[in-house]
Amino acid sequence: MAKKDDGSPVRDALRVGGALPDPGSAPVGPGKKAKALERLDSAGERLSALQEALYAEGVGGGRRSVLLVLQGMDTSGKGGTVSHVLGLVNPMGVRYAGFKKPTAAERRHHYLWRIRKQLPAPGQIGVFDRSHYEDILVPRVSGLLTKAERRRRYAELNAFEAELAEAGTTVVKVFLHISPEEQLKRLEARLVTPEKRWKYNPGDLDARSHWPAYQDAYADIFEKTSTPHAPWYAVPADHKWYRNWAVAELLIETIADLRPAFPEPDFDADAELAKLAKLAKLAKLKGVGVSS
Amino acid sequence: MAKKDDGSPVRDALRVGGALPDPGSAPVGPGKKAKALERLDSAGERLSALQEALYAEGVGGGRRSVLLVLQGMDTSGKGGTVSHVLGLVNPMGVRYAGFKKPTAAERRHHYLWRIRKQLPAPGQIGVFDRSHYEDILVPRVSGLLTKAERRRRYAELNAFEAELAEAGTTVVKVFLHISPEEQLKRLEARLVTPEKRWKYNPGDLDARSHWPAYQDAYADIFEKTSTPHAPWYAVPADHKWYRNWAVAELLIETIADLRPAFPEPDFDADAELAKLAKLAKLAKLKGVGVSS
Repeated sequence: MAKKDDGSPVRDALRVGGALPDPGSAPVGPGKKAKALERLDSAGERLSALQEALYAEGVGGGRRSVLLVLQGMDTSGKGGTVSHVLGLVNPMGVRYAGFKKPTAAERRHHYLWRIRKQLPAPGQIGVFDRSHYEDILVPRVSGLLTKAERRRRYAELNAFEAELAEAGTTVVKVFLHISPEEQLKRLEARLVTPEKRWKYNPGDLDARSHWPAYQDAYADIFEKTSTPHAPWYAVPADHKWYRNWAVAELLIETIADLRPAFPEPDFDADAELAKLAKLAKLAKLKGVGVSS
Repeated sequence: MAKKDDGSPVRDALRVGGALPDPGSAPVGPGKKAKALERLDSAGERLSALQEALYAEGVGGGRRSVLLVLQGMDTSGKGGTVSHVLGLVNPMGVRYAGFKKPTAAERRHHYLWRIRKQLPAPGQIGVFDRSHYEDILVPRVSGLLTKAERRRRYAELNAFEAELAEAGTTVVKVFLHISPEEQLKRLEARLVTPEKRWKYNPGDLDARSHWPAYQDAYADIFEKTSTPHAPWYAVPADHKWYRNWAVAELLIETIADLRPAFPEPDFDADAELAKLAKLAKLAKLKGVGVSS
């Protein structure tokens, strides 16, 4: 449960409720780049430690996992967040899935079909780079859903996330909030830098031309799908250093709240140590390392 | 094709052929810890750059990928390699899969069924922490396969990997070679350190008691499944710093050999830049960032 709590200042400050913070602002935490980078460094250590405990819990039979859902306009930094935040922890514990426009094969299934296949295993941190929210966002902006269909889809999305909570997966939904001015700069950077050009898609300009419609659609999503078990957070994302720090802290607070625990050994550690000592002695006597 | 080449000194030095190098040795590259850590740092940058190009190629429609297969006795450092080597690159481009003892559901399928489900997507680096080789290793040591069955399984494994090569996946098979003395130390460390105890499994001592049988089985595997398209490398792994450096270099040489290329844009970059300039001008005139 993401409830108000003294130990979760970042979640409390960034949880969506009413107007979104300015994309260039720093509503909580470091307001300057140098400080943010320094704090991201130490966040990396805390995040790694928490991730390892969550992973160990999973190995020990625990079923809990975390799912980070990243949404945002093109160039808002979903990929950068994966690289700079999830890149801080052991890849064994991370399951990344990017969702592009559904393929013909995917479209023949229910829209949650391809989503379910990518859920994190127990102990893992799953990351969705775009997600099931594209399935309300895009058709809505394209005017393909009636009001009744929209209502039904919201109910489905909420039921799906309630099911995840029930199964032990804590969902953290993050909207990376950039300004159209910043988007323009980033699109330009993609075009002028040869090694970045592959990230550019002329279709991004079409989506951009519907900017207000997308903002409305997101506002509606936040209103209809912010639940206690799967809240939305809006992260100001014009500054990459702020975005990285904030997402790292959201993950830290969320996992810390779960209090993941290293599993209790189901063996007698002293007896095992005695066996090892015996093996070591034997090896020494025989001048080899193994008793076979 | 992994062919002898002046640009692949690490692959050439570590490719299995005859007796394995000493687990504590450094047959190629840095022989001291400080130097190895320094060189791993710069290897990280090269590996990241190559991985990004491979990933970009995949986004652009390329089908190539890399699969790193990690095998080795318990505590040989498969997990540590994932953390320290794959942790150097963007998690978006990495697909990790660990294979434990097959579940009841998995055992009802062909042993390659669960393997196929975890293959890397185009542009990705897949990592198998244990792999399809467990399916010859364990039954063989347990005496469950007749000679004819073994022969058939080797043929299957080679056919499977030939199929992967055909599909564009370059397979890099690494045996992390530790000594039984080092294993004993690492097992002890797992037992005496509370946060490491979850990694200890009393069953590891059973496997250890069959050490020579495992070494024989591996020798047989190297002989029967080292192919030009999917060679085996033996990495001395008593020193973690050497292991990490060596695996990073094996990946670097392998991916560099593929010469992954950023995709050519299928749009007119100048025309797109002109559109952006127009949008920027419009935004300035209207005092807002979006032309809607």
